[in-house]
Amino acid sequence: MERGPTQDGGGGGELRPAGPGPASGSPGLPVAAVLPAGGCGERLGGPTPKQFCPVLGRPLISYTLQALQRVNWIKDIVVAVTSENMDTMMAIIQRYQHQRVTLVEAGATRHQSIFNGLKALAGDHPHSKLRTPTVVIIHDAVRPFVEEDVLVKVVTAAKDHGAAGAIRPLVSTVISPSADGYLDQSLDRSRHRASEMPQAFLFDVIYRAYCQCSEHDMEFGTECLHLALKYCQTKAKLVEGPPDLWKVTYRRDLYAMESIIKDKISQQICVVMNTKEDAGCIGFLQGLLKKELEVKGTSVTLCPNGRDLQKIFLGECCNFVCINVMNADFHQTTELLDGLRSRAPSFFYPVAVVSVHFLDSQNVSFSERMKALMEMKDFAKEVKNRNVFLYGVLISFTQDNLQQLQENIRQGAGIITSLIKNRSAELTGQLLVA
Amino acid sequence: MERGPTQDGGGGGELRPAGPGPASGSPGLPVAAVLPAGGCGERLGGPTPKQFCPVLGRPLISYTLQALQRVNWIKDIVVAVTSENMDTMMAIIQRYQHQRVTLVEAGATRHQSIFNGLKALAGDHPHSKLRTPTVVIIHDAVRPFVEEDVLVKVVTAAKDHGAAGAIRPLVSTVISPSADGYLDQSLDRSRHRASEMPQAFLFDVIYRAYCQCSEHDMEFGTECLHLALKYCQTKAKLVEGPPDLWKVTYRRDLYAMESIIKDKISQQICVVMNTKEDAGCIGFLQGLLKKELEVKGTSVTLCPNGRDLQKIFLGECCNFVCINVMNADFHQTTELLDGLRSRAPSFFYPVAVVSVHFLDSQNVSFSERMKALMEMKDFAKEVKNRNVFLYGVLISFTQDNLQQLQENIRQGAGIITSLIKNRSAELTGQLLVA
Repeated sequence: MERGPTQDGGGGGELRPAGPGPASGSPGLPVAAVLPAGGCGERLGGPTPKQFCPVLGRPLISYTLQALQRVNWIKDIVVAVTSENMDTMMAIIQRYQHQRVTLVEAGATRHQSIFNGLKALAGDHPHSKLRTPTVVIIHDAVRPFVEEDVLVKVVTAAKDHGAAGAIRPLVSTVISPSADGYLDQSLDRSRHRASEMPQAFLFDVIYRAYCQCSEHDMEFGTECLHLALKYCQTKAKLVEGPPDLWKVTYRRDLYAMESIIKDKISQQICVVMNTKEDAGCIGFLQGLLKKELEVKGTSVTLCPNGRDLQKIFLGECCNFVCINVMNADFHQTTELLDGLRSRAPSFFYPVAVVSVHFLDSQNVSFSERMKALMEMKDFAKEVKNRNVFLYGVLISFTQDNLQQLQENIRQGAGIITSLIKNRSAELTGQLLVA
Repeated sequence: MERGPTQDGGGGGELRPAGPGPASGSPGLPVAAVLPAGGCGERLGGPTPKQFCPVLGRPLISYTLQALQRVNWIKDIVVAVTSENMDTMMAIIQRYQHQRVTLVEAGATRHQSIFNGLKALAGDHPHSKLRTPTVVIIHDAVRPFVEEDVLVKVVTAAKDHGAAGAIRPLVSTVISPSADGYLDQSLDRSRHRASEMPQAFLFDVIYRAYCQCSEHDMEFGTECLHLALKYCQTKAKLVEGPPDLWKVTYRRDLYAMESIIKDKISQQICVVMNTKEDAGCIGFLQGLLKKELEVKGTSVTLCPNGRDLQKIFLGECCNFVCINVMNADFHQTTELLDGLRSRAPSFFYPVAVVSVHFLDSQNVSFSERMKALMEMKDFAKEVKNRNVFLYGVLISFTQDNLQQLQENIRQGAGIITSLIKNRSAELTGQLLVA
């Protein structure tokens, strides 16, 4: 079974999905990628195969596909999934608008799945419309943080040497146990490396290796570099990879992945204000936020067509802090949300919008605040469907107590930072008080 | 330099610190532990050595020490730290009341640090008051989740075989590169294992090995099992360890560690109520909470000497949900907090207390709610010093709209769960509204 490549969609909603965006490192030859995704993830200890586990609400494999499809010189991405997960995978591709993806059926082992992917690229399938590439990348569905940089390196090395793979230093010493469970030998850590993914091959080399591969190797082996060496006498060039290439294996790796993404998308904020006045309490708040987060852009133009706001949206920031002085309504925030909607119908990562209100507690009554809160809840519910998380922060002050105001702003900055870093879906629509 | 063992303190504040508590698995012979902690953690990419990095506000090494000191048959824990970190380490021991710990100066390499620790146990130091153990455990300062179970296994195996160490399956294939960076050989994954910690040795075996150890091995080796084999012909017994034994190496491992701890301490809640009525909205709320969290105990007795509450405290739960029906004050919550204070002056993990108030929005005015919020902020500030995080949730209803009430309770349950799971210090003192 093979499902044809998905159309190049609009790619809407792609808001800083993975790394700094496509570089100009095209290796200048036809390249495709094969992703074996037929595993059951038994080491994770749950019923869901790890490649389908949700991370910030999105299946793990969607992050990996996004990372690969951003590299525009990878012409086809062939994913091997088991027949029982075929529909799940189709739904993921459709929902997250993945592009240039073709599905094939996974085999019983990792090697068989890869071979099925290669066959689709070789044109062995009668209905295959895929073009046979010069170099094929083999990557894991559960290594979501692959960057273009390392892909260029392995592809270039594969072009020159026939095969190439990313390696990392060993974290633990490797030993060989005797049959009865005693230490037989301990390997010199400095002379060994962990073999990671991505790997890349001249298509002819790896395809020939798989065609000749013994049943035993097909069943018990896991290492493609080994097959290229054994069956085609091709010695792979080894390329030092970054630590973020690691394979999501245990539950703790899912936790780490989620924290890495949260950390990555929480670094930068854009500030939108309803006043040009950058001094006083606003300046103090911005100064505090700058200590924790990078303030990427500031705007006082609220018209969605205004240049300032356009620039902010193009900056692909995931976090907006909308400051309202002496204003309990959400007029400015709704304009910002409209601007965001015009940019994308929904976002890859949850976008955090914090509506901050400086209110004189002697001038604004409690009932007005409560009314504001209710409005806020309604907005929040609506925009959550587009993966926008809306929170509110009310910083109250009395004109005659500057020290108290400073303390409240300090608390407010802490609350804003925490909302952006934790990005809790359950706390949307809340007006927190400093 | 050697700093004598710390006194057995009260161990106050130990609230479910690591695992299910001491088992009855004492191996019945004198055992000590050596913890090399002289590394600089260059792979983490920060200025702080990883063993001192804060995790939920507490240095990593404090978790490891806590895990070891809970095992009451480990009589001494010798920690090797560099002279520049000696004061930091002393402060950690004092602040977190670590027991049976002796500090020695770390050497230039890991092996030298371990050797310094062994020398202190051998009585080679003129002022050493430590007793030489029969078996010594060697563990890493940056493997915080070591359980008594695996410690018993390696100690017992060391007693019988002279040496023993925990192993894990390999996650990646291990290869050996040629000098010019090509694949030379790829190792059979099924025939190799990762050597992890803890390891244990008959003291005489490992001490003799270190005394004979060549300068080269002392400088470039990392593996104690290898030294026992090379210098004492002792073949270590290998023991399969759990996945949580992994070594905190990269920043992502710190993220994973924090999430594992949050996950562990967020599982169970105790519910305290100001009414015996367990039906209606309270029953509905409890039912929703039970879907996400394990409700470990319920109490309607508020007197700190009451049996119900005592039982709750003894259960060593880290999360309390305090339900108040038709009550905006914090009388019940303060009683609970007083009860917690009587149990421990401060806690190992941040304890989450969520004060929930069911309020008829037609009967309770906005100004009353605001007043309640201000009271709440004051309490929260005070108890935060004892590592208790206090949050509030207000579930409003009108008598005539049951459907709206159910929706609000559903939202409230989501907020409570999120507060307990995220445990954000910045959001303490907030009264969230459902």
